[in-house]
Amino acid sequence: MSDTDTSTAETDDREFVRDTRYITSRVTRDGRDGYPVEAGRYRLIAARACPWANRAIIVRRLLGLEDAISMGLCGPTHDERSWTFDLDPGGVDPVLGYERLQQAYFARFPDYPRGITVPALVDVPSRAVATNDYAQLTLDFSTEWAEFHRHGAPELYPERLRGEMDELMVAVYRDVNNGVYRCGFAGSQRSYDHAYARLWERLDWLENRLADQRYLMGEAITEADVRLFTTLARFDPVYHGHFKCNRQKLSELPVLWAYARDLFQTPGFGDTVDFAQIKRHYYVVHTGVNPTRIVPAGPDLANWLSPHYREQLGGRPFGDGTPPGAPRPAEIVPAEHWAPLPPAW
Amino acid sequence: MSDTDTSTAETDDREFVRDTRYITSRVTRDGRDGYPVEAGRYRLIAARACPWANRAIIVRRLLGLEDAISMGLCGPTHDERSWTFDLDPGGVDPVLGYERLQQAYFARFPDYPRGITVPALVDVPSRAVATNDYAQLTLDFSTEWAEFHRHGAPELYPERLRGEMDELMVAVYRDVNNGVYRCGFAGSQRSYDHAYARLWERLDWLENRLADQRYLMGEAITEADVRLFTTLARFDPVYHGHFKCNRQKLSELPVLWAYARDLFQTPGFGDTVDFAQIKRHYYVVHTGVNPTRIVPAGPDLANWLSPHYREQLGGRPFGDGTPPGAPRPAEIVPAEHWAPLPPAW
Repeated sequence: MSDTDTSTAETDDREFVRDTRYITSRVTRDGRDGYPVEAGRYRLIAARACPWANRAIIVRRLLGLEDAISMGLCGPTHDERSWTFDLDPGGVDPVLGYERLQQAYFARFPDYPRGITVPALVDVPSRAVATNDYAQLTLDFSTEWAEFHRHGAPELYPERLRGEMDELMVAVYRDVNNGVYRCGFAGSQRSYDHAYARLWERLDWLENRLADQRYLMGEAITEADVRLFTTLARFDPVYHGHFKCNRQKLSELPVLWAYARDLFQTPGFGDTVDFAQIKRHYYVVHTGVNPTRIVPAGPDLANWLSPHYREQLGGRPFGDGTPPGAPRPAEIVPAEHWAPLPPAW
Repeated sequence: MSDTDTSTAETDDREFVRDTRYITSRVTRDGRDGYPVEAGRYRLIAARACPWANRAIIVRRLLGLEDAISMGLCGPTHDERSWTFDLDPGGVDPVLGYERLQQAYFARFPDYPRGITVPALVDVPSRAVATNDYAQLTLDFSTEWAEFHRHGAPELYPERLRGEMDELMVAVYRDVNNGVYRCGFAGSQRSYDHAYARLWERLDWLENRLADQRYLMGEAITEADVRLFTTLARFDPVYHGHFKCNRQKLSELPVLWAYARDLFQTPGFGDTVDFAQIKRHYYVVHTGVNPTRIVPAGPDLANWLSPHYREQLGGRPFGDGTPPGAPRPAEIVPAEHWAPLPPAW
């Protein structure tokens, strides 16, 4: 996603309100919105820095959709015209031929007025964004794209759990995923204090929920865990200081910290996380919060690889399925981006 | 001290360099600079927010100079014309009759061109600043003001230790006391990275030095401990996030954290610390670092009162002396400024 002014709005009491008017076309089996599921037709444009895009990167990998849906990655920083393909040779996405993700939005709607956000699923034939509705996107990866899942793909959105999961994910979105932004982009002390209270109330609630069960919905990983994870991975490197979410560090919350490390050390999670890009993105892009654009050298991140002992709670991380294999060579996070981590990782 | 632009300068590589050209007249027994030691003649103008002023508040209290030297306190925030007496009834210091500390500087030098800083020792008859040379000031409290010390005052600057102490205090000043500012006010990534490396090298060195001895110079508290303490007290509430000194929190460094709590729980140290004013000062005044002026709600500070077990290292905190008594009623930090601490404190 992008958090520059174009995608945000402020209410009267200067609370941060995310603009959630996305392009809501869906890619479905029946193609009712004009975008039928089809292997090789769509390209996921993501950015490792972005927590909302990180969700899609993880789900694509857990389900083994790499062959069916290619991936392009934008660099961590961007200007007011948003995400660019500056990481690619020549600064151009090799499939779409674009320098800026904006071009794919304009190909869909020439006067597209809202934020240019990642993740975006781009229809390659028309080189136009099919959808940027990140919350629906990953659920559709689980449901609409089932025929292209790898053998052993986990059930990330099991039908029997959907009612409870949807409710949980709404609360976690409001108080945590988006809650950290409500702290960091608060326009007044009052709206910050309010968001901070909500955030910590929910984190305490999660700390309690996860004390005796390995994952949010029980014994196996679901989409709910993916969504919480991408926020937790950014907590100490960014949200604690940059967004003033500083009652404690994540690493001071015994249960959530062990839970986050458990996921981090699970194939498909930690291997998608690029701490260097994450830190650069927030500290460089948000000049309203960090006008110096200086990126902190801390925190020490080696502790993400320390033992978590969550396996003692039992659970079957992939349910009846299996872990994904190694990432595609072209999709490996460069070792130097883990600078503070042991080189062996 | 004041850290607005008036008191700072930048070198070519955009490193923060503190303007250390103070008013170097000294208040001495022999009065050679025109300011003889005399009970009741001087007023210490301080601000609880400021680490450099906090040193003078602590030393005055440890030595029992309250009767000899009165104290006025500026509020935690200030504008480009610097510190004001906004905490006093009518916004006027009751002894000097001033609204702004600036007036005492102009009474000494009508065109005083440098930063209006605390601590300042003001000569009450002329209502003019005698000195604002904070480093010499506290040493002079120990040496020049000896005849006014309370019975049982500790020896904070013992002659036999001065050589080693001076060297240590220079290194701690450069890398830690001022080092945190060099991180926070760095004008480039390079100068930040440099200051950060120096800071953490020195903190690791201090962690090692204090592992087996209770205080920096051995078994008793000295001025060197006072100087380190006022920086450590601000570390987690401010420097960790606001100044990006975030390799770890102080509370993650076992030795320094126990050492800091030991001092905090010693009469004359923690009872001078006003966390609410400290946080307000940095986050509201430094708009170049925190343009929103929002003050973080965290961190949880109750842990400052947890057991430190440093007494197991032995030591005699006040040497042959005794702890100071309770603070003067007018000089007690209001309980609500400890909001996250137990009300009993």
